[in-house]
Amino acid sequence: MSEPKIDTRLWSAKARNLSPYVPGEQPQHDNLCKLNTNENPFPPSPKVGEAITAVLAQQADELRLYPAPESDDLRAALAQLYDLNINQVFVGNGSDEVLALIFASFFLKERPVLAPDISYSFYPVYAQTFGIELVQIALEADFSVDPDAYRQPCSGIIIANPNAPTGLLLSLSDIRKLASEHSNSVIVIDEAYIDFAHLDSDSSDTAVSAVSLINEFDNLLVTQTFSKSRSLAGLRVGMAFGNVSLIAALTRMKNSFNSYPLDKLAQAGARASVLDTVYFEQTCQQVIELRESLTAQLTELGYKVLPSHANFIFVRPKDGNASDVANTLREQGIIVRHFDKPRIQEYLRITIGTAAQHERLINTVRGMQTPDDTDLISS
Amino acid sequence: MSEPKIDTRLWSAKARNLSPYVPGEQPQHDNLCKLNTNENPFPPSPKVGEAITAVLAQQADELRLYPAPESDDLRAALAQLYDLNINQVFVGNGSDEVLALIFASFFLKERPVLAPDISYSFYPVYAQTFGIELVQIALEADFSVDPDAYRQPCSGIIIANPNAPTGLLLSLSDIRKLASEHSNSVIVIDEAYIDFAHLDSDSSDTAVSAVSLINEFDNLLVTQTFSKSRSLAGLRVGMAFGNVSLIAALTRMKNSFNSYPLDKLAQAGARASVLDTVYFEQTCQQVIELRESLTAQLTELGYKVLPSHANFIFVRPKDGNASDVANTLREQGIIVRHFDKPRIQEYLRITIGTAAQHERLINTVRGMQTPDDTDLISS
Repeated sequence: MSEPKIDTRLWSAKARNLSPYVPGEQPQHDNLCKLNTNENPFPPSPKVGEAITAVLAQQADELRLYPAPESDDLRAALAQLYDLNINQVFVGNGSDEVLALIFASFFLKERPVLAPDISYSFYPVYAQTFGIELVQIALEADFSVDPDAYRQPCSGIIIANPNAPTGLLLSLSDIRKLASEHSNSVIVIDEAYIDFAHLDSDSSDTAVSAVSLINEFDNLLVTQTFSKSRSLAGLRVGMAFGNVSLIAALTRMKNSFNSYPLDKLAQAGARASVLDTVYFEQTCQQVIELRESLTAQLTELGYKVLPSHANFIFVRPKDGNASDVANTLREQGIIVRHFDKPRIQEYLRITIGTAAQHERLINTVRGMQTPDDTDLISS
Repeated sequence: MSEPKIDTRLWSAKARNLSPYVPGEQPQHDNLCKLNTNENPFPPSPKVGEAITAVLAQQADELRLYPAPESDDLRAALAQLYDLNINQVFVGNGSDEVLALIFASFFLKERPVLAPDISYSFYPVYAQTFGIELVQIALEADFSVDPDAYRQPCSGIIIANPNAPTGLLLSLSDIRKLASEHSNSVIVIDEAYIDFAHLDSDSSDTAVSAVSLINEFDNLLVTQTFSKSRSLAGLRVGMAFGNVSLIAALTRMKNSFNSYPLDKLAQAGARASVLDTVYFEQTCQQVIELRESLTAQLTELGYKVLPSHANFIFVRPKDGNASDVANTLREQGIIVRHFDKPRIQEYLRITIGTAAQHERLINTVRGMQTPDDTDLISS
């Protein structure tokens, strides 16, 4: 499709000044090894397809009716999963929509919102969309988050945990510290990847997810998604957990944008996924095992691999020539993500794939090695 | 569920000041005659369920992948339907989401947006959500729109056509007049109900939908929905048609809120609906016939019925006691919509249902008649 010339004459200033989010590319070639957008290598629970097929078989006629506007059955299942009340649960059209509503509901104030300088690149986009000042707080040299660096007046703080694209995990004790030190700000922990996290051996925490702190802090909001650990990026469902007053604000904001963001099939499919805990735990565990083996293999090939708690790894080739490596991989049909940004240009983010995809990746990387590297391998 | 006390301490001023849209209720009783939210009495095309089932059967695994962000296949089908280019078509999560993006993209300016005083009640909500001044232009005494009443500086004009809840149709020549007289404003024609409209016998127009004017006016944007004429309220798909520069703004705005609003199943189901033109035309025609017969029956019972171009009728009981009639109908399990608003308190909006639902409605109305009314019936 050739791009026609765009005339912005009738646009609002807001439309003109946006810098929209650019998602990872979704090329549609055969035999592509797509390790660039952190999708799950495993299919969703078979119960998802069964639930949707059942809706179509038994109540296809009911697609003519509006869906439950607040997705009550799905929220009830999520509440039960985390031992919460249904009014501590909010769902939306992917966690991206949930995050947009969060920015409008809690961060649109005179004080800025704080976020790590290296994190999910949609955060600055939301800030711009709603006219919110976003102050980026530098990660430490090792890419970890230091809670003390966030000690400044703010409307709120948003941190992806595990962080993307680093994969590093902030401890619950650090989150507890942030929430208690900023009791007049909303602390948002974006747990898109939390189901792939594990307690480090030296941790004094008893859990990884901040959902366990919801009843303790009325200013803590935790977002999650069905797109990663539940293999349902194609179904567009995300959620937030928090105090009833935070959830009430999100519900008001939703009903001022779009009353029915989740269609009937997405509600039924997502609910079936929540109920199938066995499949969920098995596939998460498999992704974690694949991550650990890929980490070991790339380390052996001289790559620096950050300790990941997500379904991707953040790696630095021995010479820091990440861009070259990405291009060479692409020539071989393997797509990984390179961010041309300060501090992380020398790194690649590689999504955890299947064992076969990993073998192809490792073979290709091995073929790129110089004799010097090869020595390293055999040593 | 008991309502907990809500504390707004952490909310943004925007969240506090919203007056969210209140959709028609969705009660879940058996044997309810639900004529209150303008859903289609007929099921969607069987091709919709078949297409979604095929996706699940052949590519359930692919739900793990993100959907096409711009819904290209669906947009291509819509473009072909209306003989447009794909970049003149935008789709979103229901026309409500499309309208929200339109307000932010085109109406967020210093001048106000204009809308009829009696129209879709989400328009003032969007204006408040985005901090836009909305000036309501009074409909004429007969509830028609007078284009000359819109002659004032504005960022844009939004008119539902056919209008809701009146069901009246604005002619294409009037829309042409609005678009040409306001060449520096965006004219939005919200055609949620257009597929139930017909050319009046005295009309000089050759069509009812303003989509036919898209190539003529670069400031004209037409929205439609799958929720009414395509019986897919449960699937959440809406669309806009307009000049490439208007569509480009909507795409930018979407990608600053939520990149993937349409899930894979909704894209496939909506596309199947578009391709099944025979079913679509048949069911629209059936709804129109049911509307005409219900109009005749209620007229016979002494009701004033506005000439409807939609899948609902706007009626005034003989004594103007619309609220009482709505309550009595409700006691009999028949839900219609009453708006307790100036100028229209004496009216009811009744969705076109099945022949059986109409029979039940008519019998109930007949049973409510006084002897005086009964004379009228037999006369």
